Amino acid sequence: MHAIGIDIGGTKIAGAVVSESGEIIAERRVATEAGDSGAIVDAVVEMVQSLSVGQTIVAAGVAAPGFIDSAQSTVYYTPNIAWRNEPLRDRLTERLGIDVTIDNDANAAGWAEYRFGIGRGVHDMTMLTIGTGVGGAIVSDGRLFRGGFGAGGELGHMRLVPDGLPCGCGARGCIEQYGSGRALLRFAGEIADAGGVGLALAEARREHGTLDGSSVGSLIAAGDPGARLALEQLGHYLGQACASLSAILDPELFVFGGGVAIAGDLLLDPVREAYRQHLPARGYHPEPRFAIAELVNDAGVVGAADLARLHSRAR
Amino acid sequence: MHAIGIDIGGTKIAGAVVSESGEIIAERRVATEAGDSGAIVDAVVEMVQSLSVGQTIVAAGVAAPGFIDSAQSTVYYTPNIAWRNEPLRDRLTERLGIDVTIDNDANAAGWAEYRFGIGRGVHDMTMLTIGTGVGGAIVSDGRLFRGGFGAGGELGHMRLVPDGLPCGCGARGCIEQYGSGRALLRFAGEIADAGGVGLALAEARREHGTLDGSSVGSLIAAGDPGARLALEQLGHYLGQACASLSAILDPELFVFGGGVAIAGDLLLDPVREAYRQHLPARGYHPEPRFAIAELVNDAGVVGAADLARLHSRAR
Repeated sequence: MHAIGIDIGGTKIAGAVVSESGEIIAERRVATEAGDSGAIVDAVVEMVQSLSVGQTIVAAGVAAPGFIDSAQSTVYYTPNIAWRNEPLRDRLTERLGIDVTIDNDANAAGWAEYRFGIGRGVHDMTMLTIGTGVGGAIVSDGRLFRGGFGAGGELGHMRLVPDGLPCGCGARGCIEQYGSGRALLRFAGEIADAGGVGLALAEARREHGTLDGSSVGSLIAAGDPGARLALEQLGHYLGQACASLSAILDPELFVFGGGVAIAGDLLLDPVREAYRQHLPARGYHPEPRFAIAELVNDAGVVGAADLARLHSRAR
Repeated sequence: MHAIGIDIGGTKIAGAVVSESGEIIAERRVATEAGDSGAIVDAVVEMVQSLSVGQTIVAAGVAAPGFIDSAQSTVYYTPNIAWRNEPLRDRLTERLGIDVTIDNDANAAGWAEYRFGIGRGVHDMTMLTIGTGVGGAIVSDGRLFRGGFGAGGELGHMRLVPDGLPCGCGARGCIEQYGSGRALLRFAGEIADAGGVGLALAEARREHGTLDGSSVGSLIAAGDPGARLALEQLGHYLGQACASLSAILDPELFVFGGGVAIAGDLLLDPVREAYRQHLPARGYHPEPRFAIAELVNDAGVVGAADLARLHSRAR
């Protein structure tokens, strides 16, 4: 039977009817006003209802950024929506009359990769989603690792640099400040300022008034040395983080998702290099593989649907 | 039915017959020559046989330092014994004729605390064993977290200080160099060198020729400001590590075991203080408790026995 997955983003909501094998049967997308939490609930209800027409739906899963409690029912906190201790599952279940579960968006994406993407056949996988920020997901022995309060796997907020850059989370030196899309643009800006290999970046910045993901991405693809250097810096920081994550989580596979991951081996090569350099007890046990996510755009909805299906089965 | 737990240390082997409720029925201890791997296997066999006399034993669990594979059968690497890819389980099963499993010693200790010690009733627990080095154990949703290759939970080798002190594992800046018993002695030595609050430490060092755990421990207990300052430094580093571990593992409870943990709140207070200061997204979801382990000396044998019993049941 099909399940519905909903992915609440900063500016849009994506939804899909997903089969047991992870196939997308139908899909919808609507823009939302960030911050208007009531309107977002209405939009989710409407989307689930319209996707359900003519379908037998076993459950609906909602992926949202932020902290979800370990019972998958309450949103403790979302960065861009005014939810604080919001009983989102009950609110949606009441209005929809079907089984609803809530999950962190990076967890949903990681679960999708584990079930239907690059992580198929692996038992222990760690995923880093490199978008504007850095999200994380941990799959351990075939199960999604949620932690005691539901907020485990927030890998972007592991500290990489003591007394480093301040992070939106209130701490300092988090990976998110050194390994995210936003960090890539900061590195690119610094290289543009330095001249030399940064000339093309400086030129792009003059032309567009600012350096954005698409211009830096184009320069990376075109082989510009300055843009590639910025990506290498990012990869080196992420590789250092993976070395520590190996000591803690020891995954068989590290998966990189999110917008920056389309750089493929141009990202993974410096990640691997820094990983090897910083790995504790290197050579004393097997080493993990590094790979790019497969389901980039649909991972959130596919994972949310599958987690909801499994949750409804377990009840 | 009872199970036997064996804990292989650097200089001795401890063994016990353990009941299903974690009670120690009988106990033995022998000294070993570090490094002589054949003699250690002989000693383990002998100990299991002598402990088995007159008992019905369902399984035997062996806890050892180092990396054990995820099948709990092969020792990839032990720091003080010449085992490399040693098929220890098969070797012991062959000679003993009962079900044997192998586990990392810090994992066994953490499991014992979760089942019979301070972690009773908790589902997600992270334990740091502060001995000469720093060991770790992760219990997630009531299961021991082993990682993809069996080497998960090596929390002592998470990086705390980039380009920090070299660690025995080959990396730099590992928690083990800032949060272990050895680090405590280094801090105490630095404070002794500085004079002022370090005068009593300097005096103890003159008297014994060196600063060891027992003299620093006595000064801590006696309220000496220099020795307490060294313990505070240790606690601050450990609290910073726990802040990152919370983002990754989000446990309900952090447990501190090992010799240094007998300092109790004198250790936990600075841990809590640094944790709060460095915690990402503080205030946005529930916070964990910090506590001292209960089974300090017996945790290894009790945990190894219980893990072997559970493993033999699952077969």
